[in-house]
Amino acid sequence: MSDAVVSIIPEMKRKTIEAFVEKAQENDVELKEVKVAPISLVTIGKDEIGNAVVTEREDIAHMSEKRLKKGDSICLDFGDHHVGYVTLKLNSAGSPQDAPAFLRLKFAEIPQEILDDSNTYEGWISKGWIQEEFIHIDVLPCELKLPRRYAFRYLEVLAIDTSQKFQVVVEAAETTAVSAVSMEDVAPLTELPEDLQKIDRASLKTLQDCMQHVFEDGPKRDRRLWIGDLRLQAKANYATFKNLDLVRRCIYLFAGLTRDDGKISACLFTEPVMQADDTFLWDYSLFFISILYDYYKETKDIKTVEELWPAAYRQIELALEDMQDGVLRDDEPLTAFIDWKEGLDRQAAAQGVWIYCLRQGKELAELLGNKEEIAYIQKLLDQALVDAVRAFWDEEQEVFVSGKERQVSWISQAWIVLADVFDKEKSRKLMLGILENKEAVTVLTPYAYHHVIEALLHVDEKEKALEMMRTYWGGMIELGADTFWEAFDPEDPLASPYGNMQVNSFCHAWSCTPAWLLREYFK
Amino acid sequence: MSDAVVSIIPEMKRKTIEAFVEKAQENDVELKEVKVAPISLVTIGKDEIGNAVVTEREDIAHMSEKRLKKGDSICLDFGDHHVGYVTLKLNSAGSPQDAPAFLRLKFAEIPQEILDDSNTYEGWISKGWIQEEFIHIDVLPCELKLPRRYAFRYLEVLAIDTSQKFQVVVEAAETTAVSAVSMEDVAPLTELPEDLQKIDRASLKTLQDCMQHVFEDGPKRDRRLWIGDLRLQAKANYATFKNLDLVRRCIYLFAGLTRDDGKISACLFTEPVMQADDTFLWDYSLFFISILYDYYKETKDIKTVEELWPAAYRQIELALEDMQDGVLRDDEPLTAFIDWKEGLDRQAAAQGVWIYCLRQGKELAELLGNKEEIAYIQKLLDQALVDAVRAFWDEEQEVFVSGKERQVSWISQAWIVLADVFDKEKSRKLMLGILENKEAVTVLTPYAYHHVIEALLHVDEKEKALEMMRTYWGGMIELGADTFWEAFDPEDPLASPYGNMQVNSFCHAWSCTPAWLLREYFK
Repeated sequence: MSDAVVSIIPEMKRKTIEAFVEKAQENDVELKEVKVAPISLVTIGKDEIGNAVVTEREDIAHMSEKRLKKGDSICLDFGDHHVGYVTLKLNSAGSPQDAPAFLRLKFAEIPQEILDDSNTYEGWISKGWIQEEFIHIDVLPCELKLPRRYAFRYLEVLAIDTSQKFQVVVEAAETTAVSAVSMEDVAPLTELPEDLQKIDRASLKTLQDCMQHVFEDGPKRDRRLWIGDLRLQAKANYATFKNLDLVRRCIYLFAGLTRDDGKISACLFTEPVMQADDTFLWDYSLFFISILYDYYKETKDIKTVEELWPAAYRQIELALEDMQDGVLRDDEPLTAFIDWKEGLDRQAAAQGVWIYCLRQGKELAELLGNKEEIAYIQKLLDQALVDAVRAFWDEEQEVFVSGKERQVSWISQAWIVLADVFDKEKSRKLMLGILENKEAVTVLTPYAYHHVIEALLHVDEKEKALEMMRTYWGGMIELGADTFWEAFDPEDPLASPYGNMQVNSFCHAWSCTPAWLLREYFK
Repeated sequence: MSDAVVSIIPEMKRKTIEAFVEKAQENDVELKEVKVAPISLVTIGKDEIGNAVVTEREDIAHMSEKRLKKGDSICLDFGDHHVGYVTLKLNSAGSPQDAPAFLRLKFAEIPQEILDDSNTYEGWISKGWIQEEFIHIDVLPCELKLPRRYAFRYLEVLAIDTSQKFQVVVEAAETTAVSAVSMEDVAPLTELPEDLQKIDRASLKTLQDCMQHVFEDGPKRDRRLWIGDLRLQAKANYATFKNLDLVRRCIYLFAGLTRDDGKISACLFTEPVMQADDTFLWDYSLFFISILYDYYKETKDIKTVEELWPAAYRQIELALEDMQDGVLRDDEPLTAFIDWKEGLDRQAAAQGVWIYCLRQGKELAELLGNKEEIAYIQKLLDQALVDAVRAFWDEEQEVFVSGKERQVSWISQAWIVLADVFDKEKSRKLMLGILENKEAVTVLTPYAYHHVIEALLHVDEKEKALEMMRTYWGGMIELGADTFWEAFDPEDPLASPYGNMQVNSFCHAWSCTPAWLLREYFK
């Protein structure tokens, strides 16, 4: 997720459960550091259909021979996507350095970002996310150790100005890449076709680069723990890196840092202090149940479930406050997130999420043997199933519709299917039908694509699921992706939910799920 | 001086006399540090005639109440010109900081620099001199300790972007001002009229802020030891701060770091290594004699003269290589510096410098009792005086003319007068005549204004000298100068020798001389 959802509640009161925050601290992980040198100098240009690509490569040994005078630049390729810290060894050539060298450093996850001009950025989220630094160097030679962390594969060094007397030379460059996990920890899926192996590899790299001191949503932007992303990351992690400490840490953080009434925030901050954000999403709060459920399925760690179940149960109680007549009120368009698709009505999908989480919550309550809670959740569940059909089923069209406009969308069907509102056969027909429906509202984000594909797999439509994975994630691979993106529209690869692609994140947690789906269903 | 003179000699061979460089190191000075807080918040705008001025002031106590959102800025006034290091205490306000704060910090010696837009800078010297930083702050609150040194009075903090959720707050700001000397070391000239006291005060501040580990030409730009500036700074220093170590250090640096044939460079670098620049100016090399002469007059330190006289004498020998028929060859317009005045012919003024330095050189040789050298210099001097009249005196116009075009200029007369080519009365008439001559080429820089005024004082025209000082340096005071500028044209206050005023230095060594002249002639 991301700050597409801007919520500002200045008077928000927070509650901290210190014991949970301490537990989170105990589960903090030491990051693994790997030194990475650039593999070549590259030139980035446009291919015949207008995509930004590497058009030329040059031996990296030539780097230290390049003398950058005013306006000159070189672009370093570090060979893969990395998250880390960069050190450059800079020198001067020519006459003595008689002015500060003024450099621009541009970090790019994908080639397009090298071609972008930050001066043209007028999107609605902060320009501060563009990975670009303007640096004066008074005395060369020097070792320039940049204090900030970057997510990137390419680094362009531009001499904005030197003087007529001297030039700048980049003698060496190094990245200290950081992550909680190593790619070596996961066996590649060598038995799968090559295109799927590539999808798997990029999924793993995406997940790896998002696994830092928390599961970040994107290491370029916005580097935070969002609960919607966490749910998918944790599941992908169980199938791959299996770093359980990091999951435990994140679960305890969400349970320990809430609104004063116990509502779990959509995201939280770990710096400068640990605190919940003042952004709440109805579905995201409910997903705390789902995350705890998945964690138990993976670990059988009943102790953690015992400790955190009250926090999870509280989300059910609080979710009801936003419901009317058994369904989510539709007065605020972004009460639930579901997907970024413009014009999407989220009511029916939210009903699916509600049922999905109630089912998992009931299992957890059963595990703990709390009879009152079991009964209460069962009652809510029975009612929710009735309300789903009553409020959203269109018998004539044989589809679930959403909102006053009776919108027909992929994601409504997907969540209803994942919620098992109908039996498998009826659900299967629903999914196949919606994909054939030319009028239906499709999905936009990898997050929503994931749920559509998961729904297809849920009804045993493995071929359809694989086809969609190949079109969508494979589409990014075809565009040269090393990691998967925050947003991707195969019809319009340069689209951005922010009005400008420069702040898009091209290594984004919620798009890492093929690594899990391929292992779960296709291995 | 400055890099207006761009000389690039890639194959230049250098000579280092280690003993001299060591002596320079021994005379290095520890800088005095003073903590300075801003005195108010200011708004900078234009006055009725278009000059940038402070239009509003606000209590500095309000600073920490300002919440800077995207596009907001505050401007801090540190009360006087300072050279130093800045630390800001920054915080965030509003919702949690969900994006890097992206700030622009603009340091300004004069209000105009706050209004300037660096994007429009297209001058021919490095844009890197513009004192402007672009900084991303990932985590607020923080103490932002800027590593670079700035020369400034005003500091504008602009929030280029924050996010919709948070704002930036500047809670505190502090400068650690540095200089080799303190203003308290010099008694103000309280008996002089107020306007002259103001001129004296700004001259002293200019000199103070240029006195660092060497006599810098300008602490904003270009922060180096130029020999033409050093000569004037040293004389002003003798009359005021009396820091002899710093003079000794700089003299030994020039003598110890030369071209392989002993030619003294126009400027030199102390970082990253001590080395002479590959820029040579005929008059500047000769001024080494003059600097040594002045140093002896002030200190009677015969030991240093003994050590450094060979280096000084060598400049006479080498100056001859650029002469033909007894005068400086005019094939390269900037063989000698003299002034930046466009179209200036420098040949006659150079003859004045030659005679001026030969006279001082002869005195030094006499001091050391070196008969051969005395005789040789005397011979050169006699010939130079003859050649001055033969080559440049126009009997009809009763003026010295310069170059093929027989140019009539202020500075030619000034140097001829300072060289005592004629007796005092004839020199006096020459000076008075040239100032009345509407056709004469005038001067541009404070450096050249100084020599014209010194020539007037040399012929006892104190009133005329004072009038010029009041018009020129007083003109800068009227425009609000705290320190004196590198370049100033009373007719066109926004002129720049670099094609753009943004890189001008507004605290420049060669304009500090009123502090000396007022004490020498008017106290």
